[in-house]
Amino acid sequence: MNPISSPLLTDLYQLTMLQAFLERGMTGTAVFELFVRRLPPGRNFLVAAGLEQVLDFVEGMRFGEAELAWIERSGLFKPAFAAELAKLRFTGDVHAVPEGTIVFPNEPLLRVVAPMPEAQLLETRVVNLLHLETLVASKAARCRLAAGGKGLIDFGLRRAHGAEAGLLAARASYLAGFDGTSTALAAPRFGIPVFGTMAHSFVQAHESELEAFKAFAAAFPGNAVLLVDTYDTVAGVRKAATVPGPLKGVRLDSGDLDALSRESRAALDAAGRKDSIIFASGNLDEMRIDALVRAGAPIDSFGVGTSLVTSADQPALDMVYKLQEYAGRARRKRSAGKATWPGRKQVFREYAPDGTFARDTVCLETEQHAGEPLLRRVMQDGKRLAQPSLAEARRHAAEQLRRLPPTLKTLEQADAYPVKISEGLKDLAQAVDRATA
Amino acid sequence: MNPISSPLLTDLYQLTMLQAFLERGMTGTAVFELFVRRLPPGRNFLVAAGLEQVLDFVEGMRFGEAELAWIERSGLFKPAFAAELAKLRFTGDVHAVPEGTIVFPNEPLLRVVAPMPEAQLLETRVVNLLHLETLVASKAARCRLAAGGKGLIDFGLRRAHGAEAGLLAARASYLAGFDGTSTALAAPRFGIPVFGTMAHSFVQAHESELEAFKAFAAAFPGNAVLLVDTYDTVAGVRKAATVPGPLKGVRLDSGDLDALSRESRAALDAAGRKDSIIFASGNLDEMRIDALVRAGAPIDSFGVGTSLVTSADQPALDMVYKLQEYAGRARRKRSAGKATWPGRKQVFREYAPDGTFARDTVCLETEQHAGEPLLRRVMQDGKRLAQPSLAEARRHAAEQLRRLPPTLKTLEQADAYPVKISEGLKDLAQAVDRATA
Repeated sequence: MNPISSPLLTDLYQLTMLQAFLERGMTGTAVFELFVRRLPPGRNFLVAAGLEQVLDFVEGMRFGEAELAWIERSGLFKPAFAAELAKLRFTGDVHAVPEGTIVFPNEPLLRVVAPMPEAQLLETRVVNLLHLETLVASKAARCRLAAGGKGLIDFGLRRAHGAEAGLLAARASYLAGFDGTSTALAAPRFGIPVFGTMAHSFVQAHESELEAFKAFAAAFPGNAVLLVDTYDTVAGVRKAATVPGPLKGVRLDSGDLDALSRESRAALDAAGRKDSIIFASGNLDEMRIDALVRAGAPIDSFGVGTSLVTSADQPALDMVYKLQEYAGRARRKRSAGKATWPGRKQVFREYAPDGTFARDTVCLETEQHAGEPLLRRVMQDGKRLAQPSLAEARRHAAEQLRRLPPTLKTLEQADAYPVKISEGLKDLAQAVDRATA
Repeated sequence: MNPISSPLLTDLYQLTMLQAFLERGMTGTAVFELFVRRLPPGRNFLVAAGLEQVLDFVEGMRFGEAELAWIERSGLFKPAFAAELAKLRFTGDVHAVPEGTIVFPNEPLLRVVAPMPEAQLLETRVVNLLHLETLVASKAARCRLAAGGKGLIDFGLRRAHGAEAGLLAARASYLAGFDGTSTALAAPRFGIPVFGTMAHSFVQAHESELEAFKAFAAAFPGNAVLLVDTYDTVAGVRKAATVPGPLKGVRLDSGDLDALSRESRAALDAAGRKDSIIFASGNLDEMRIDALVRAGAPIDSFGVGTSLVTSADQPALDMVYKLQEYAGRARRKRSAGKATWPGRKQVFREYAPDGTFARDTVCLETEQHAGEPLLRRVMQDGKRLAQPSLAEARRHAAEQLRRLPPTLKTLEQADAYPVKISEGLKDLAQAVDRATA
């Protein structure tokens, strides 16, 4: 069983509910929507990401022999269930906002319309994928806002939560405006530019720091970024400046990055290394980047690791996948603090004359409204439609960030962006409540 | 390329350093140790986990055709490099603390002794795996301390950071004392008990809540836990109590869980359902579990999701993999705030007369010391040695939690457990500093 693509990578209750739906013939059309209930503290917007991985999963979802054998031997299901699962394919439609789109609470990122058993089964993995990439893309966008035009590289793989988190964090951060990643696999897998410098161990393994620098510079002529903080940072920069031939740059990974970057810049310039860049890393996040940029620290590029890939200050979003309609009738839940808006929805975004976002309105799909509809069809009858490339999604995300209202571009919590609920939607919610009262 | 087992799932600099080491013939024996530099705020100990996945990775590490083709076409490496990589296998030794062992800062969880290129290449993925599982196991142990003997189930897959995080969080939390998980794949993959209830969508899809309850109870006779908070919780419990036949229990997923659990217990008892359990979920963490248990809320079992699998309050550990010796000579780095202790180390744990931990001492491997040595050989010449099963590791973790000093069993930050550095280790650090001054 493939630990990434197996359909058993789901909550057990999806399977038990599936059996019950099939037994009862409840295969009517279900409409589920995925959205974020509220923004985490300190976030002013989210950047939607992960749709490509969702479509891969949905299109390829099937129970193989190993999965069916477990279903049979688990003792949890009735004997006929495995044969039903063997036939299961996703045959429905999916609408979604394009990757890189900025979204707000209560706005569907994705809508699934399919026979109930198929639509229900998607829940766990679809949330798992969109949650991860949207979480990281939203954090990455904050880093991009802080860094301005400076370089930003994802350095987070080692403390990402597992293999997939590391690989998809490289993708999500690139989509949201990073320049690349240190994760090698992201190059063949997604075509993302990869970057690397050197580790302290390389310096330590040599008899002297200078010997290590010379060796690395000789191995990667013109492309070596030398790590200078193993023993004494400024002394390290002076040694790095003496290596023969061109020197791409130096990396600072500890200490007072503001002061050290200034001393390093002066040392490099004094040695005639004006073209050598200064790369900084070490527990960076958007707040520290912002402080360094505002202070005028002469840092050309930032490596951001743990805080990016774990979205360390807010490592989760309140993202859910909720039934909005079944068998032609709108549905909602009313649980305390978790009530949902029923029905199939569309989000219309209106713009100010200068192109910035003015307001969004969540409407019923059938309502007319001013503005640009954000949800588009991405899968029809179980077949995906052509999607923008990662490069196109990245350009879209950059354009979205440019059009974000200036008040939302700050790193501090701003007043919420206006997301209105249409009158049609409010009327429907009241009607549903009366019917299930 | 397998996105989980590919050796390209590493930082690019591991590959560039590897090329430089090979070019320079630096294939002498390297000793790397993995440890956590400091505890995150609010954590009093860590539970080591993830060794089984590390050994799988290390034993199976090889560059396949697809990886080698990328190495060649990337333009980042010299032509001879791919042929060297094709031959690469791990041939070294690994020592580690058994999974489930409680560890503290500066104590090696793992030591790798191997030719430099092999040992260096492991870094990124070995940290990635041990970091994730140790992080989640440590969070899970806090939940177990809070829950006492009550049930604990991992519900976190949908908001875990990707597929592997979800699957390994199920493993790590079970190892540290959870009773099971909702992640179906954890059953065939690791033999972990799986649990499931039902979703709100199942209730909503039916014409009435009672109809949904009857349908689910009929589909899983005697094994149904009914979700009662879709519309009105206490009314839901009363309806659940009327389903024909035995009722395993009800699940509360929102609202004031203390008050609702008491009302639910009373309603179940009044209906003659004294054997039906109360299951609670919804944004739970160890602090809320502790409060509910202390208040005497009649909850039998807790489902813990997002806060567990993301270790939400502290989603990362300061875990590193550092060169301690190369070619027979001890090494250390002295970067500001990140200095390391050199050489091959062993941790000795001494116990109080009642069996609780008294103190640990980090020594050189060659030093004699009182107490139990924690690191054991787990791989020799690239071949893994027999390891405890997951069930054995789980029993070991439970025993470790029992032997934890009472002051460290609180959820609040306690005074640090004493971890001493031996005189031999201090002497070696001074000698290394003199030699690299």
